[in-house]
Amino acid sequence: MIQRAVILSTGDELTTGKVVDTNSNYLADKLHEVGIDLVAVITVGDVPERLEWAWRSAMGMADVVISTGGIGPTADDLTTETIARITGRRLIRDEATVEHMRRIFSSVGRPMPENNLKQADFPEGAEIIPNPLGTAPGFQLPVMDGERITHLVVLPGVPREMKPMMENWVIPWLRDNRGTDTVFAVRIFQTFGISESGLDQAVAGLIKPEEGRVAFRASFPQISLRVTVEGRPGEAERRLEELAERVRAKVGHFIFAEGDASMEEVVGQLFTKRGLKLAVAESCTGGLIGHRLTNIPGSSRYLKADFVTYWNDMKSEVLGVSADTLAKHGAVSEECVREMAAGARKRAGVDVAIATSGIAGPEGGTPDKPVGTVCVALDSENVTVSRRYQMRGTRDWVKLLTSQVALDWLRRYALELPIAESQLFRR
Amino acid sequence: MIQRAVILSTGDELTTGKVVDTNSNYLADKLHEVGIDLVAVITVGDVPERLEWAWRSAMGMADVVISTGGIGPTADDLTTETIARITGRRLIRDEATVEHMRRIFSSVGRPMPENNLKQADFPEGAEIIPNPLGTAPGFQLPVMDGERITHLVVLPGVPREMKPMMENWVIPWLRDNRGTDTVFAVRIFQTFGISESGLDQAVAGLIKPEEGRVAFRASFPQISLRVTVEGRPGEAERRLEELAERVRAKVGHFIFAEGDASMEEVVGQLFTKRGLKLAVAESCTGGLIGHRLTNIPGSSRYLKADFVTYWNDMKSEVLGVSADTLAKHGAVSEECVREMAAGARKRAGVDVAIATSGIAGPEGGTPDKPVGTVCVALDSENVTVSRRYQMRGTRDWVKLLTSQVALDWLRRYALELPIAESQLFRR
Repeated sequence: MIQRAVILSTGDELTTGKVVDTNSNYLADKLHEVGIDLVAVITVGDVPERLEWAWRSAMGMADVVISTGGIGPTADDLTTETIARITGRRLIRDEATVEHMRRIFSSVGRPMPENNLKQADFPEGAEIIPNPLGTAPGFQLPVMDGERITHLVVLPGVPREMKPMMENWVIPWLRDNRGTDTVFAVRIFQTFGISESGLDQAVAGLIKPEEGRVAFRASFPQISLRVTVEGRPGEAERRLEELAERVRAKVGHFIFAEGDASMEEVVGQLFTKRGLKLAVAESCTGGLIGHRLTNIPGSSRYLKADFVTYWNDMKSEVLGVSADTLAKHGAVSEECVREMAAGARKRAGVDVAIATSGIAGPEGGTPDKPVGTVCVALDSENVTVSRRYQMRGTRDWVKLLTSQVALDWLRRYALELPIAESQLFRR
Repeated sequence: MIQRAVILSTGDELTTGKVVDTNSNYLADKLHEVGIDLVAVITVGDVPERLEWAWRSAMGMADVVISTGGIGPTADDLTTETIARITGRRLIRDEATVEHMRRIFSSVGRPMPENNLKQADFPEGAEIIPNPLGTAPGFQLPVMDGERITHLVVLPGVPREMKPMMENWVIPWLRDNRGTDTVFAVRIFQTFGISESGLDQAVAGLIKPEEGRVAFRASFPQISLRVTVEGRPGEAERRLEELAERVRAKVGHFIFAEGDASMEEVVGQLFTKRGLKLAVAESCTGGLIGHRLTNIPGSSRYLKADFVTYWNDMKSEVLGVSADTLAKHGAVSEECVREMAAGARKRAGVDVAIATSGIAGPEGGTPDKPVGTVCVALDSENVTVSRRYQMRGTRDWVKLLTSQVALDWLRRYALELPIAESQLFRR
């Protein structure tokens, strides 16, 4: 019966501040999703007596200890040895693992160094956890202390190896061993355009505590909403789908994705599906919208060009913004961004163009147009929309939030929704 | 005598995976710099018995325990109470702190909620650590256990409040109480264009272990080199400057900055100082170079425009790349990027332009031009340079590395150095 966990994170790179421990955050999130109570995270460097203290402390408090790091081939990789010592197990070499490692090395045309062999040594009684993306597997070792069993789960420290092992092996195993016949069904909604408290209010009363758990996670500029339902297999998913319907009906198109997709991914899917072509004209965002769009593989199918016209003469010369508009309204005006968007659309010969201009700060603000003043426009054959917003925050926040608004407008355009429906800003 | 530390990180947001614990990384880095040995990091949620276990374990192992979080005004903020309970101290209200908090609330025109008063309660014997950016101060409490003294240092969890308290108060206090009359002098060199092993080789033998400590930190795409010297005040700095001179003489212009500056900051400083104007033409980087340049406040002084010509017809129409070049050499060719750079420079009327074109992947590779093939060109009145590179890694790595190469070329151009001197790539 696995209900309480301790995470153990090891390595000198953590205790000397060289590396941020993102593994523990990932594991904490996954454990929370599975419904396992995380008692503590303990981090120590590669020092035998500290490792021993950490393992003993962890084993005293938890039904499962999940460890990352310390199973590489070098002398300062001490995890397996430490476990063997404190549990009194001997180490047994696993020949299948040796074979697997030799194959990996020969596939890249190198002989396997002898010290790699220790990665094939496991404490007696351990169950091997395959590592599809690396040389060294992990293992799971049940340890008895009187009536109590503590399971030791040992994973590598490299995130790209650790995560698939967690997802393919450890999480299903944890679900099977939680000691109840219930499972957790989880749905994540990605939202934008509504504040955390607005979302909280919208959802309040929608889901009763006995029906499911609701959690928010703000990761600027978007806010995700996670709904978790505990129940019997099949039944939990059915009840979750019912709750998800209520959330969708209430939160509507502030939800831009279900699951982990980013706004630029969603825009990419919609533009690909609808065969729409796109151009961007940026001033204050300085290339960030183009950068985000082109982070998506295949974005060359729908993005033709991004004109970052940082100086006013470039706005005129490249996008055809009139000297009159610039003189009368300035570059940060709805008039200017409308002309930028129209100019970009025409120049690139595309279906739709989006434009931004604003004062990202920290300098350049005026009483009329303080730092954080941002104008956005979208231009297409049938629709032209523009808005002026007042944002708060540092230069990078203003840039990021503006880019998110612009991408959200593109999503709404492709879905034929009202374009500028954010509740985040007041004029 | 403070030599060993434990960091204690508290809060349910950490044990449920809502937030990545970047505070502990920051503190570990600072402790390492001061020369204090970090024994462990312990993270627990807001649960009384777990907090108590964490504090007792930490106090048993360290001369100083640095805690973040748990000193807010709400019921789940338990740090001060926990310390009072396990050390047997009573809590005393500090009237100066009450006064300070009332002033902050009245300055924003709000009455202070009664529950905030608990933030003015400190264990008897505590020394208050001022919090210039927030309501709640921290404190330092020395606790005797026989002959041994352990110092408990309590800081808020909000990074923007915690960091100045650490820098202004805790670090100087730690330096004063390390129990030696020596200090650590530290210099950080930011490098690009040389691999970690190349840098290691260059520096090997340059600095003897008894002269100073050398550490590398790779944070893609740059590698920093940290030199630390321990010695008496004044003397340590002098010896460090001597070692720094050796590093500069050996590593040369692969060092793009000393201290924490980014490549785009350095480019900004150089272009501002020299009054140079700049344009960018991007294909595979998709706006990332413009985005990075415009992250720097004041970048509108030197960046006029960034033309992200993602489609070939845009390269021709906007930048004047000839149909012949595209037909004969393709968009990913030195010929094409040279014409892109020349076209961007002419169009924007600037001193220098930089251009990129490549195959960021995961699709679009051919036997001749596999994924990771990238061409970069720089064009100015007197100099035109282009190179073809073969990069490795995912789409975002190829984009990021290409942008770093481009920015490095701009730096080298402004410094009148040879442009394309990277040792990172082989054709």
